[in-house]
Parts: sequence; structure tokens; C-alpha cells
Amino acid sequence: MKTLKVEALTAEAFSEFGDVISSTGQTAHLINHGNTEKFAELTIVDTEARDGKTAVHIFRSQPLTLPLIIEEMEKHPLSSQAFMPLHNRPFLVIVAPPGEWVDSASVRAFITDGTQGINLRRGTWHHYQVSLQQESDYLVIDRIGPGRNLEEQRLDPVLVIQNLP
Amino acid sequence: MKTLKVEALTAEAFSEFGDVISSTGQTAHLINHGNTEKFAELTIVDTEARDGKTAVHIFRSQPLTLPLIIEEMEKHPLSSQAFMPLHNRPFLVIVAPPGEWVDSASVRAFITDGTQGINLRRGTWHHYQVSLQQESDYLVIDRIGPGRNLEEQRLDPVLVIQNLP
Repeated sequence: MKTLKVEALTAEAFSEFGDVISSTGQTAHLINHGNTEKFAELTIVDTEARDGKTAVHIFRSQPLTLPLIIEEMEKHPLSSQAFMPLHNRPFLVIVAPPGEWVDSASVRAFITDGTQGINLRRGTWHHYQVSLQQESDYLVIDRIGPGRNLEEQRLDPVLVIQNLP
Repeated sequence: MKTLKVEALTAEAFSEFGDVISSTGQTAHLINHGNTEKFAELTIVDTEARDGKTAVHIFRSQPLTLPLIIEEMEKHPLSSQAFMPLHNRPFLVIVAPPGEWVDSASVRAFITDGTQGINLRRGTWHHYQVSLQQESDYLVIDRIGPGRNLEEQRLDPVLVIQNLP
């Protein structure tokens, strides 16, 4: 069982997997008669394949504890999937590059800064979202429509997250 | 100057204008091996007109104070527009039914419960989001693409919100 190190989430480190949704380090322009800063187009949603529509859900997840065994990953071949925390606590993002098979050696784990959300690019392998400490709500933006948009795969070898940075 | 009364936001009262994005009163189903409750399809995003794409932004708004004069409304003729608070405080939602002209007599004001977001239906007239108490961030889901997707109109008579319920 190989140990997976947890890295701080940054746009650069995550660029292979999708976008980080955060105002930090972004430039805004003023709208609404100067009342509002707009941090525009932090990510684009990709749901149109095969007559898909964009749907918005709330996911409420129970916290997981360390050590955490990572044994299964999933991907959505027809759409992106965004997670925006409706809480202000860090959560874990565990991903691997798109491709037919997920390779345990290519899996990476990131921890958010408490404000960051993510948009997983279409086909990016990922573990389901890992909340820490307490029950946590997320706004989720993905696809509804025809076609099978979920593939799951077991990791071999499985991985373990022993601690946080 | 006519006074506009503020009502509590409910899905039923808001149905003419769009959807309320909230898990309250909704039924979830379990996913992620039982770890996550999914409150599914709380709203559907409508951005496809004229080759539109769905974009995600963060809006950071300064708080407004009462009495609040409502003198201008806007609408997006090509798309829905969703606002999800990234804070846990109530905000005001000021809307009027879709149509070519906005009638001051048809304007309604709602206050959220601190967890609710909204998705304005395409063409719903609305005031820009009104934050209360302090600077507030929102995740905004709307459209980028060709075509003019903003119309603004001044109210006559203007309206005033004197107090909250």
C-alpha cells in the first residue's frame, strides 16, 4: 500500500485536471454601478455532449478520517463536474489524468484552502469528494442527459493518505 | 415613491421567477457508498441559446443599507442566472416577471434564509443582488457567448424598501 502525499491546491498544479474556482490572485472588474467586483469566467462548464444539460445539485458529505485508503476512482466521460464548498473548511481533491485506465502511480491529492472550489475537466479521474472534520455541503454543477456519464475503477495498488501537510 | 414589502423566500412564492437552490425540504438519495446525500437537480441552467456556454464567476458585493431605493432593473434575455451565497447571511432578491417592460407594480422583494441560492429564469427582471451587513461573495452561474444578454430599465415610479421582516 503506497502512501499518497497531500499537496496544497494551486491553479498551476491542478491545470492538468481542471480549474480552481477562487477569487484569490484573480483580477476583478466592477459591475452593478461599482457595487460588485466580478471575478469573471473562473471556469467554463462542459456538459453539452450528446444533448446534455447543466444541472445544479447540493452534495452533503460526511467527514472521512485519516489514515484514508484510496481504493476506487471515477470519471465522467461526458462532462465536467464542479464542486464549490458551501462551508469554509479545507477538503481533499484526489485526481488522476484522463485516460482509459487510472494508474495508481499518477494519482495526486490536493487540499483546498477553505475557499477554493474545483471544476474537474471532462474525463479526469477522481475520488469522490473527501470532507474533513464535519458534515459539509457543496454546490455541484454537472450534467444530466442521455448516455452513461460515470465510469468507476478500482486502484491497484490501493493508496493511503496518512496525514495532511 | 412606493414602499416595497420584503417577503420570506420560498420555492412556491418564487416559482414565477425561477428556482430556489436549497436542500431544505428536498429529498436526497445516497451516493458515494453512502457517504454523501445528493439533493439532485435543484435547478437546470439555461444558457444554450445562440451558441452560449455556461460560465462560473464569483461576485463580491458591498452591503447596501435601508432605506434602499430600487430605481433600476435588468434582465438576461438569453439565459438563466444563478446566485449561490458563499456566506451564511440573508440577502435580498428583487424581481419582476419576464416581459418586454418592467412594471413597478409587479416588483417583489424576497429575503433568503442565509442558506438559499436562486436561479433566475431567463428573462426575469431583477435588481442586482443586494447584500446586507458586510461584503459578501456569491458563486454565479450564467452564460457567455454571442448576442446581447443584458437589458436594463429604470422603474417609474421608483420603489423603496424601508425595513426587513
